[in-house]
Amino acid sequence: MRDLLIEEQSILKFIRDYTAQAGYTQVVVGVSGGLDSAVVATLAVKALGSQNVKGLILPYKTSSKENVIDAKGLSEQLGIIHKIIEISSIVDSYFDNVAPSANTMRRGNYMARIRMTVLYDHSASIPALVIGTGNKSELLTGYTTQYGDNACAFEPIGHLYKTEVRLLAHQIGVPKPIIEKKPTADLWYGQTDEGELGMSYDMLDDILRKLIDEKIECDQLIDRGYNPTSVKRVCALFRNSSFKRSLPPIIGEAIY
Amino acid sequence: MRDLLIEEQSILKFIRDYTAQAGYTQVVVGVSGGLDSAVVATLAVKALGSQNVKGLILPYKTSSKENVIDAKGLSEQLGIIHKIIEISSIVDSYFDNVAPSANTMRRGNYMARIRMTVLYDHSASIPALVIGTGNKSELLTGYTTQYGDNACAFEPIGHLYKTEVRLLAHQIGVPKPIIEKKPTADLWYGQTDEGELGMSYDMLDDILRKLIDEKIECDQLIDRGYNPTSVKRVCALFRNSSFKRSLPPIIGEAIY
Repeated sequence: MRDLLIEEQSILKFIRDYTAQAGYTQVVVGVSGGLDSAVVATLAVKALGSQNVKGLILPYKTSSKENVIDAKGLSEQLGIIHKIIEISSIVDSYFDNVAPSANTMRRGNYMARIRMTVLYDHSASIPALVIGTGNKSELLTGYTTQYGDNACAFEPIGHLYKTEVRLLAHQIGVPKPIIEKKPTADLWYGQTDEGELGMSYDMLDDILRKLIDEKIECDQLIDRGYNPTSVKRVCALFRNSSFKRSLPPIIGEAIY
Repeated sequence: MRDLLIEEQSILKFIRDYTAQAGYTQVVVGVSGGLDSAVVATLAVKALGSQNVKGLILPYKTSSKENVIDAKGLSEQLGIIHKIIEISSIVDSYFDNVAPSANTMRRGNYMARIRMTVLYDHSASIPALVIGTGNKSELLTGYTTQYGDNACAFEPIGHLYKTEVRLLAHQIGVPKPIIEKKPTADLWYGQTDEGELGMSYDMLDDILRKLIDEKIECDQLIDRGYNPTSVKRVCALFRNSSFKRSLPPIIGEAIY
């Protein structure tokens, strides 16, 4: 990452330019109580002013209460209009009637997609753009729900690894409890990113930097002494998630 | 379009190759009763066999009954397992509670996105890929709901203009009533594609071919005697919908 101050300025410019160029003045952000959305909400307020940022807090009934409280606290601190919309009845009306035996993974992905539908409908009512909260670590590993949390108009922190997002969070004054909590998609009880990924973000980002930015092959990384299990896992995640970083393919492709 | 028979073979190969390469044997298709999904369902059956294609018919309470009957009839004719899931209660549980005054456009887009969530959840339960039904005319004009009907794993007819899809439909034996009905997204009563676009598909596709495939400028097309209102409309639709044909932008872009 470049110097933190330069990085911040570059993101603020990106937010301002993209929003204006698309013909909008406002953005909507899904505020989860976690780090990424806190950073994006804070940057959006710095770029566009608090009056131009709307926060939606979209808990499911099993969502962590602490996250909802933190999301609300952050929104108040930023001075943005925010709204809590429980998505439980929307989600349950599907599963209860159509797929009562669906497993946790399906329910989690469905929640992420329902949040997208609510964010997009809300954005249309303002009108505003849905600002994304994806970071480079999750985009590269596909640790997202396709057409769910990865669906947005633009990704202002999509070029930053999770460890970089945390550094930036300190600089722009994101509340400490949000910075220090364990990262989680909060799609089911006890879920943590690092638990699911099988390694710390420090390790993940280190491996991703070598693989993607320095273009070092997986085998070579293992030869250099990196943990083989972790390297193989990251390589597989990257390879198997390429469809989430691509548009649906068309015959003859790239015709537009 | 190439020779119809060659075109058909090329699409069948694309469906087989993409599905296998992604590690799947089955696809799920949203069958609306309209032309595009009928063509895709028919091609998918030809490519993968009827046992590997699942149809979901996803009407809202205002959806045309005729379309539901046609979608069911087609699925039976193709011999595919199909299921009708009314999305009314899912859609209404959102609008009744959160946005009762939402207009028709918002409701239509929301329906399209809810259909996506149901298709994706169903595909996860099989497991199968969600096969897309977008054609080139609608992709180029953005006549789709982002993260709604344009969300899929791959687009087997995304390289064909609507008028070409209709020719192919005749060849592969899509029932006449489906081929001959007025194209509509069926998101509200009386909606027709040509009514919303303000011109016939013959005219639209003619203009798009000149603009996109032959790279003739809008002004030049008007000079050549094309209807200025139609040309300007198509040029604006194309320009203003580029975000629907792109991934959410990231600073530094194209880093993957």
